Amino acid sequence: MSIIVQKYGGSSLADTEKIMRVANRIVSTKKEGNQVVAIVSAMGKTTDNLIKLAKEINENPSKREMDQLLATGEQISMSLLAMAIDNLGEKALSLSGPQAGIKTDSTHSKAMITEIVSDRLLDELKNDNIIIVAGFQGVTENHDIATLGRGGSDTSAVSIAAALNADLCEIFTDVDGVYACDPRIVPNIKKLSAVSYDEMLELANLGAKVLHSRSVEVGKSHNVTIHVRSSFNHNIGTVVKKEVSSMEHNGVITGIAHDFNIAKVVVFGVPDKPGVAARIFKELALANIGIQMIVQSAQTENQNDIAFTCSLDDAREAKAILEKISNDVGARDVVITENLAKVSIVGAGMMTHSNIASRMFGTLGKAGINIDMISTSEITISVIVNSDQCEKAVRELAEEFDLID
Amino acid sequence: MSIIVQKYGGSSLADTEKIMRVANRIVSTKKEGNQVVAIVSAMGKTTDNLIKLAKEINENPSKREMDQLLATGEQISMSLLAMAIDNLGEKALSLSGPQAGIKTDSTHSKAMITEIVSDRLLDELKNDNIIIVAGFQGVTENHDIATLGRGGSDTSAVSIAAALNADLCEIFTDVDGVYACDPRIVPNIKKLSAVSYDEMLELANLGAKVLHSRSVEVGKSHNVTIHVRSSFNHNIGTVVKKEVSSMEHNGVITGIAHDFNIAKVVVFGVPDKPGVAARIFKELALANIGIQMIVQSAQTENQNDIAFTCSLDDAREAKAILEKISNDVGARDVVITENLAKVSIVGAGMMTHSNIASRMFGTLGKAGINIDMISTSEITISVIVNSDQCEKAVRELAEEFDLID
Repeated sequence: MSIIVQKYGGSSLADTEKIMRVANRIVSTKKEGNQVVAIVSAMGKTTDNLIKLAKEINENPSKREMDQLLATGEQISMSLLAMAIDNLGEKALSLSGPQAGIKTDSTHSKAMITEIVSDRLLDELKNDNIIIVAGFQGVTENHDIATLGRGGSDTSAVSIAAALNADLCEIFTDVDGVYACDPRIVPNIKKLSAVSYDEMLELANLGAKVLHSRSVEVGKSHNVTIHVRSSFNHNIGTVVKKEVSSMEHNGVITGIAHDFNIAKVVVFGVPDKPGVAARIFKELALANIGIQMIVQSAQTENQNDIAFTCSLDDAREAKAILEKISNDVGARDVVITENLAKVSIVGAGMMTHSNIASRMFGTLGKAGINIDMISTSEITISVIVNSDQCEKAVRELAEEFDLID
Repeated sequence: MSIIVQKYGGSSLADTEKIMRVANRIVSTKKEGNQVVAIVSAMGKTTDNLIKLAKEINENPSKREMDQLLATGEQISMSLLAMAIDNLGEKALSLSGPQAGIKTDSTHSKAMITEIVSDRLLDELKNDNIIIVAGFQGVTENHDIATLGRGGSDTSAVSIAAALNADLCEIFTDVDGVYACDPRIVPNIKKLSAVSYDEMLELANLGAKVLHSRSVEVGKSHNVTIHVRSSFNHNIGTVVKKEVSSMEHNGVITGIAHDFNIAKVVVFGVPDKPGVAARIFKELALANIGIQMIVQSAQTENQNDIAFTCSLDDAREAKAILEKISNDVGARDVVITENLAKVSIVGAGMMTHSNIASRMFGTLGKAGINIDMISTSEITISVIVNSDQCEKAVRELAEEFDLID
């Protein structure tokens, strides 16, 4: 008998009718001869509503208390789903994160799973139960509830699949799978039938929002096959796994990601001497500001400009920090540029094809799109462009790399 | 430093504004130099709304899953209240029933508290925290959540007060305390300044709804002083304790309870032979039907009628059970009478005054109120009357026994 782990997001569980539809799907999976563990998010807007209530009371509530509060959202949907399955005549049992043995560190609001003690999960499967587990939550050593942050329920699902050595982890969402780029930009873009962990990680990190990168990392390190598919139909979605055969590949380039949540910060006129760049990036790291690309260019013989990108949310804080130390490091000015976008092409095939970069830059040049910054890794090339040229860039690249159906 | 346990009901926590008012009250208690543990119910209509959701999905949901679901109501109010206190500059920490060490048996939906493991409560008090505990819930040996049933949060509060050896347990509610009878019937009825555990138990069992009898039982067995008072003002309410001095007493009769949730079941023409009554009440007990008064009267030389009262909700089931066995026991007919009410006078002073019963029956007789059944205990006398005469009976008795201000 196979163990199948399924994850259903909040939009798939938005009301009681949708919960009953999900229950039917789970029961079918069970009746096909599988043991099923389903991980659920909170119903529809529940989490938003709880956050709103909290903010009415305290504009800056403690993260521990927010976790105690938000965990109820998943607890509500898990018990309702168990009742719906019971109503269909199958045995079902809901377990909160703590009850399911999901142990976390104590970083409230973005905790990491440290261990899954799977005894109870295995016992209840043995008792022929369908198990419904509250996603997004676990329990600290101190018996406090901790939530896992963005994409937390995906991470719960893949981690439980790993702990149970499940045959498959199905992530049900409101789209049909992972597309080679955002289908809102290129409506007839190809859906990926399969993608490797590494490619999915790059796509997720670079802005594709279907699957959170943390869940892909867990999948990669425990070799969990992940199937991303729609909860609203029975179409085959996208399988994320270790190796993707050339048969399954679209071509050299797997996908194109884009991200508007990006800003460029330039520190002008930094003296060209050792330790200056280190000082700058140490201060930013201390403030937990994530740096993406870095470009240093010589302005005069003994002065450099240092440019880097970070998320839009962090840009103002970065500027403030750098202005505070600009006397120390001898910088002349700090300037933020917003209205930018990052466009990235991703593909494992890049490693064996040397002309990809030139094809990318050539395509963008021919379309009159100016490239502000460039960075590359083994399987990605990213460029920064003006935000109003982002969609055009994605479209041109999709055509160039044959990603349109 | 005194430990004060406070309990706030759902109507005191119905919206964020009311939660902030409760937070202020808790902080004042703390600032007066006390350690405070507050037990909370779910906000306003939360529990009703959760039940409605569940019923949409499954008309007869499992009790375990209902407990998993309903427990979220108290978890929401506990974390919001902790945030509100934090906003006032005091340290606060919310604990669910399981986190607070409230252990129960596994009778889902009406579990009994078996033990309170108070280590964490004591630790957090030592850390100068105000602790907010989710009422109405605990955890079974199997790590499942179990709710305590009606009046559960009161029971949580008094049990925690007992476990912490608290100096006082304040039950905040939407009325000013315990009145000698329902103030909706006699508006100028006396409020009781003090009442003994035994009297309060009788009043609670007989229909006074301010405090649930289970919480009074826990208070009695651990000698916890309980102060029932309003969360909407600072008036002194009613103190429930072991012994009430004559100074504190209203008179011989402490209060009058009434209860419309009552039905009479009469089994006609039962043969007058041993074992028949035993058989009848054994069958009813097996179905968990609580029997209140029993009257057996000889109809003919070798036939009896057996009449008893039970709650309205149970009457039809009782009739069905008795009809099923009526051939076995040789009964002629089973008849339910609804539209009844029970009116009871309660007072420890009754033990030393012999004319109370005759004063009661005389008063009712003079008012033209017919008495259907009578039962007495050490400190109560109860009569069954027609429901449309109930309020008149309460008014006449309140006057006779000098319970009007």
